[in-house]
Amino acid sequence: MPKRLVAEAIGSFFLFAGVIGSGVMAEALAGGNVALALLANTIATGAILYVVIVMLGLVSGAHFNPAVTLAFALRREIGWCAGGAYVVTQIAAGALGAWAVHVMFDLPILQFSTKARVGIGQWTGEFVATFGLVFTILALVRLRESAIPTAVALYITAAYWFTSSTSFANPAITLVRSLSDTFAGIAPADVPGFIAAQLAGAVIAVALAGWMFESQASAARSKSTD
Amino acid sequence: MPKRLVAEAIGSFFLFAGVIGSGVMAEALAGGNVALALLANTIATGAILYVVIVMLGLVSGAHFNPAVTLAFALRREIGWCAGGAYVVTQIAAGALGAWAVHVMFDLPILQFSTKARVGIGQWTGEFVATFGLVFTILALVRLRESAIPTAVALYITAAYWFTSSTSFANPAITLVRSLSDTFAGIAPADVPGFIAAQLAGAVIAVALAGWMFESQASAARSKSTD
Amino acid sequence: MPKRLVAEAIGSFFLFAGVIGSGVMAEALAGGNVALALLANTIATGAILYVVIVMLGLVSGAHFNPAVTLAFALRREIGWCAGGAYVVTQIAAGALGAWAVHVMFDLPILQFSTKARVGIGQWTGEFVATFGLVFTILALVRLRESAIPTAVALYITAAYWFTSSTSFANPAITLVRSLSDTFAGIAPADVPGFIAAQLAGAVIAVALAGWMFESQASAARSKSTD
Amino acid sequence: MPKRLVAEAIGSFFLFAGVIGSGVMAEALAGGNVALALLANTIATGAILYVVIVMLGLVSGAHFNPAVTLAFALRREIGWCAGGAYVVTQIAAGALGAWAVHVMFDLPILQFSTKARVGIGQWTGEFVATFGLVFTILALVRLRESAIPTAVALYITAAYWFTSSTSFANPAITLVRSLSDTFAGIAPADVPGFIAAQLAGAVIAVALAGWMFESQASAARSKSTD
Repeated sequence: MPKRLVAEAIGSFFLFAGVIGSGVMAEALAGGNVALALLANTIATGAILYVVIVMLGLVSGAHFNPAVTLAFALRREIGWCAGGAYVVTQIAAGALGAWAVHVMFDLPILQFSTKARVGIGQWTGEFVATFGLVFTILALVRLRESAIPTAVALYITAAYWFTSSTSFANPAITLVRSLSDTFAGIAPADVPGFIAAQLAGAVIAVALAGWMFESQASAARSKSTD
Repeated sequence: MPKRLVAEAIGSFFLFAGVIGSGVMAEALAGGNVALALLANTIATGAILYVVIVMLGLVSGAHFNPAVTLAFALRREIGWCAGGAYVVTQIAAGALGAWAVHVMFDLPILQFSTKARVGIGQWTGEFVATFGLVFTILALVRLRESAIPTAVALYITAAYWFTSSTSFANPAITLVRSLSDTFAGIAPADVPGFIAAQLAGAVIAVALAGWMFESQASAARSKSTD
Repeated sequence: MPKRLVAEAIGSFFLFAGVIGSGVMAEALAGGNVALALLANTIATGAILYVVIVMLGLVSGAHFNPAVTLAFALRREIGWCAGGAYVVTQIAAGALGAWAVHVMFDLPILQFSTKARVGIGQWTGEFVATFGLVFTILALVRLRESAIPTAVALYITAAYWFTSSTSFANPAITLVRSLSDTFAGIAPADVPGFIAAQLAGAVIAVALAGWMFESQASAARSKSTD
Repeated sequence: MPKRLVAEAIGSFFLFAGVIGSGVMAEALAGGNVALALLANTIATGAILYVVIVMLGLVSGAHFNPAVTLAFALRREIGWCAGGAYVVTQIAAGALGAWAVHVMFDLPILQFSTKARVGIGQWTGEFVATFGLVFTILALVRLRESAIPTAVALYITAAYWFTSSTSFANPAITLVRSLSDTFAGIAPADVPGFIAAQLAGAVIAVALAGWMFESQASAARSKSTD
């Protein structure tokens, strides 16, 4: 268990630092061109996602995301108690990642975002984004597990652009982004709406993926047993 | 059959939402720099293509495109009746994807594009683009199937830039793009010309790929049977 | 033999159209920002390179480049006569690719570039670029052949930026680029200097790779024979 | 041994030329937009990293970085004497790479950077960057070695943006960058601070990875022995 939690901590640290830090760097250098800043933020986010998943998947399953942990708990592939420890670790280590970014970029360590992210459009974005993320993972986890690091990285790469909310799709990073008044931030008051939409998307994805993939996964399992 | 159609629906939803939504976001942020907007649109499109193909290929074959369904029907790998159901699903679910983008970005849900896309140059573009897409898929489908998600994603990534029409290469997305008066749109009156060019490209690709790859595929099959 | 030549033709057509067409599109949209135009040109080029190599490698070896054909001829893996047919095919089909781009973008079909590309710096660039390309291919061809499509695509992606000549690294595309007075062009008078530097780089790469990789390749062969 | 050193030389030459040369090209073309220049520099760096690692990993282990050589020496997977030869080779061949860039871009061959890179924020950046790089390599080296080229390339792609120092993460390239008064340079006086932070990050990564991955690696070894 300690190794799994340390793996979740290291991955969440680098993932959250990657998201927030690349936002700081991109906004600082982009001279006001938001598309260019978001493009750099996107590429850095997709890249670090691949790395942390491929590197730590065999240790902890590479969740780094309470919506993913919830999905595996609903499928009884992780216990609720262990899942709770995962979530606490993700938030705590992710906050360290945000604060490390603040140290690196000479910003005040403790701060809160003032960026408003609210409204039906953005909540729909988070619902769609998290549904797609969890569905992608559950589609691949039994039948093409080796494709998960690339698929998750590219899913978020796309979703940064096709959802109006730039696809947080992760309750822990939503919370931690509220601790950084920078490009990737979100005002604390807007966090609950995002998290509610994310959890709803995750639950629907678990149900639909269960219907679509279970029998095939069973077939694959019985085939490899023969 | 229901699972295959639901898979086509989910993939088409995310693919078409990815193409249209990233166009909306990119144009909104790019400050008038069309190259930058198209670059973001390209990267998001390539990324979501990889995801939907790797995720749903084992369920439905991951067509999401009537030109691809036509190619497999011509090769007798899908029946004409099932192929028809695929095409209806691609269009219907893809339209839902476009409308979900409109909800996410606070745009009127029902709208029609006013962007003219017409002329010998653009039709040549669609012919070349769809020929290349279908030929790529048929070249890989028997001998290197695991490369298809990456190859299709990168083919479209390139074709967005080397064809004058930005490579729609898909009759269903052409129709659905006419329902969105945004970056990726096409005026309804210009849809038939695009679709005719696309279907012509697909048919030629089936013929050429049949000549070039069949004997090797047979050899591979008989080898794996020994 | 006909299938191999048709494969070289299709691959060269799409590769050269990809390079030249994406240059036309990128320059047209970039509003004078050359870095942005070259970035789009780079991404499209790397993407189409992956596609044509993975798609046609099993048929023709996926040369699309006389410097690569020369390398395999020097290693006696292709005959000089077949190699000559490859080179003629690459140039002819590649020219068709350039002309198809002119049709697609409503440009005069027959034209000559006026872009000067000359001098010690650029010739050094082509020497280094082609040495690296051929060395990469020969390093992988026996021991990690499945990595070649990705490695070649990413090598050219990088070399577009780290060589002063933007890494043509291919005598056939150098010739064909002289037929297009667009972003990727080169004045006809400057073609011989580029080709000489490219062939020199290829020959040195064959010699060095022969020394470095032959014994390991032999070991791998004898191991797989046991 | 000579082949391993030549492999380290060729890889370091192309890696360092790739980093420095793409910086020169990007800055020259970007018209003052630093985000765009860094984006091109990032993409070229990630691309050439994949190439040199996949191409030469089987020959020399593909270090190209004294921090990586130190990590393997601490794990007793390379002798201290061989490791010293590796480091000298990396620096010498890398300097040739920088000078080749100067020739290609018609710059004075011998020069020193004047770019100040100093302060707690940047040193923290180098510590974090190098810790993450070495931890990534050690996590993958036994259990998923084939993922190393992609993972290292994408790690640096991300780290260029989420660390304030743009992630040199390599004492040899730090030294060689001081020889180039261009985009990627660092003033000679600031080199020792960077190298100290890098070595500290590498040592911590070796300790943590040793604790986290050794038992699993042993299990994998004993399983493959059965």
